[in-house]
Amino acid sequence: MRDEFYMQLALDKAWEYQGLTYPNPAVGAVVTLDGKILAIEAHQRAGTSHAEILALLSAYETLSNTSIAFDPNDAKKSHTFLLSLPKDFFSQCIIYVTLEPCSHEGKTPSCASLLQVLALRKVVIGIRDPIEGHNGGIQKLKNASVGILREACQALIEPFLIWQKKAFVLFKLAQTTNGRIGGGYLSCEASLRHVHQLREVCDILLIGGNTVREDRPTLDCRFTKAQAPNVKIYAKEDDFDRDIPLFGIENRDVEIINTLNFLDSPSFVLVEGGEGMLKALKEKISWMLIYQTPKLSTNNLTYNTTMNLKFLHQDKKDVDLMIWSRQIGY
Amino acid sequence: MRDEFYMQLALDKAWEYQGLTYPNPAVGAVVTLDGKILAIEAHQRAGTSHAEILALLSAYETLSNTSIAFDPNDAKKSHTFLLSLPKDFFSQCIIYVTLEPCSHEGKTPSCASLLQVLALRKVVIGIRDPIEGHNGGIQKLKNASVGILREACQALIEPFLIWQKKAFVLFKLAQTTNGRIGGGYLSCEASLRHVHQLREVCDILLIGGNTVREDRPTLDCRFTKAQAPNVKIYAKEDDFDRDIPLFGIENRDVEIINTLNFLDSPSFVLVEGGEGMLKALKEKISWMLIYQTPKLSTNNLTYNTTMNLKFLHQDKKDVDLMIWSRQIGY
Repeated sequence: MRDEFYMQLALDKAWEYQGLTYPNPAVGAVVTLDGKILAIEAHQRAGTSHAEILALLSAYETLSNTSIAFDPNDAKKSHTFLLSLPKDFFSQCIIYVTLEPCSHEGKTPSCASLLQVLALRKVVIGIRDPIEGHNGGIQKLKNASVGILREACQALIEPFLIWQKKAFVLFKLAQTTNGRIGGGYLSCEASLRHVHQLREVCDILLIGGNTVREDRPTLDCRFTKAQAPNVKIYAKEDDFDRDIPLFGIENRDVEIINTLNFLDSPSFVLVEGGEGMLKALKEKISWMLIYQTPKLSTNNLTYNTTMNLKFLHQDKKDVDLMIWSRQIGY
Repeated sequence: MRDEFYMQLALDKAWEYQGLTYPNPAVGAVVTLDGKILAIEAHQRAGTSHAEILALLSAYETLSNTSIAFDPNDAKKSHTFLLSLPKDFFSQCIIYVTLEPCSHEGKTPSCASLLQVLALRKVVIGIRDPIEGHNGGIQKLKNASVGILREACQALIEPFLIWQKKAFVLFKLAQTTNGRIGGGYLSCEASLRHVHQLREVCDILLIGGNTVREDRPTLDCRFTKAQAPNVKIYAKEDDFDRDIPLFGIENRDVEIINTLNFLDSPSFVLVEGGEGMLKALKEKISWMLIYQTPKLSTNNLTYNTTMNLKFLHQDKKDVDLMIWSRQIGY
């Protein structure tokens, strides 16, 4: 199989954690030996092991037919362990990684330095790290090549590029297959759980005043048992009944706003709304995330607006379809 | 990687030809050696080589680093060639195939007999052939196992099972992401080409009277330069302007019908219509095939009905999303 095949496996894995790695980029990695796939892993959460480390640990487990005795997401322990292996342990392996291995020491040790020591047969990289000062990884590596599935690897880290400069605005929508957005919970539990994971990592959950008045939502993370996100309600008037559940959640800020200026600041803003918010935000929306349920419905709530999208990735969430797309012209 | 991983690759490949293999089932096959993937292939069209044959030929090319000099879709030549190889050529290989290799000689020689001679290390089969008299394949094979990704392999051949007994009714719809079905051509050329491929193989293209009157369609296969399908127009009255292009296509039958009894006969019926046909057919629809374009639109043509679906497979067709689903309760 060609390099593109393995890189695509790395990409697909990375998309499982899209958004959830904030403020880090989503990254995937695959390790092979003589064309045989030893590991397919992805970075899961900021502060934990990078994709390359998880893939190397998993490859170690496959090759040695043993299980490691520590948490693979403990980056320091993982680096120390990998450095303790015999010098040529991975010398015949190839690693495919969607983004250039990091050269700087952050919350976790540098992956490029580690790969330098492990001296794999080849390091195949999707794209260079676009952040200035972070792109020294490749210089440390012999036998590195770059530019496999470049466009797809670029799309994968687009949120990361946006939230460096301003808000990455992810508009989430749950709909039936014929585009109806009303009628109670539309999504399956796996989709709801995924929304709650996104709520957990975002900086702000933005919602429209009408949705608050009509749906009286809670907007917490009960499915993941995590801290509920801070909420901004975009509304002309502050006439909200404070008994609406979202106001009663501990340790969360709720702010009623009549300007969207805060979107100029680097951040991750998740938007949950309907037609009104979609029209109000319009050109400020970076990406759409649609949970599409396997139903046709006669519910009359729909969304009537124009927008050009590019589908970036689609996957199942249990019975639902989850569709990631970028707004063209954004 | 586990057997499921390779079987999934075979499944994904087979879905590329879903419907197009009529009256044969869609089948995919993967060949590996020491865990390394040598070939991923699928049956493409009735009368041509089966998936196993294409995968073995492709594996031969990989292993020998040569190209075969004949058309791999010529089943007889392919069988003869594979039988001429040294006896142990594939003896260390594993083949994964979504459906039990055929035991009978039809338009093509028996795959089970061929695999018996080639004596691979393992034959991993998704599901048994459900057709009586066709399910002797596994008995011929040593080292065969069955039951990997059973449910997905079953879904793949569901059209085949239906069209043995009555019409497999595939309702095709092109829509925007917010469920609008009007406003001229919605789909990209790759999607239109795929529709024309389906038109080419189906027995009947069924369409509603109103669509004929309003859209004045041609319903040919100009994108694939093939023979246009026979058309049945479901309408109460035969008041059609014979200048509508679909009536002017050579060598095609057009029939105006006011009953759907013909759906009781084993066949492949492709339906292209809107809300009217969807409601008229309703419980007679086996599967839906939706080409979803990356657009939101304010066009007011939509479809307002209820239906429960199960998403079976999704893939891109250039910029569009192509979603295959089954009607639940069908």
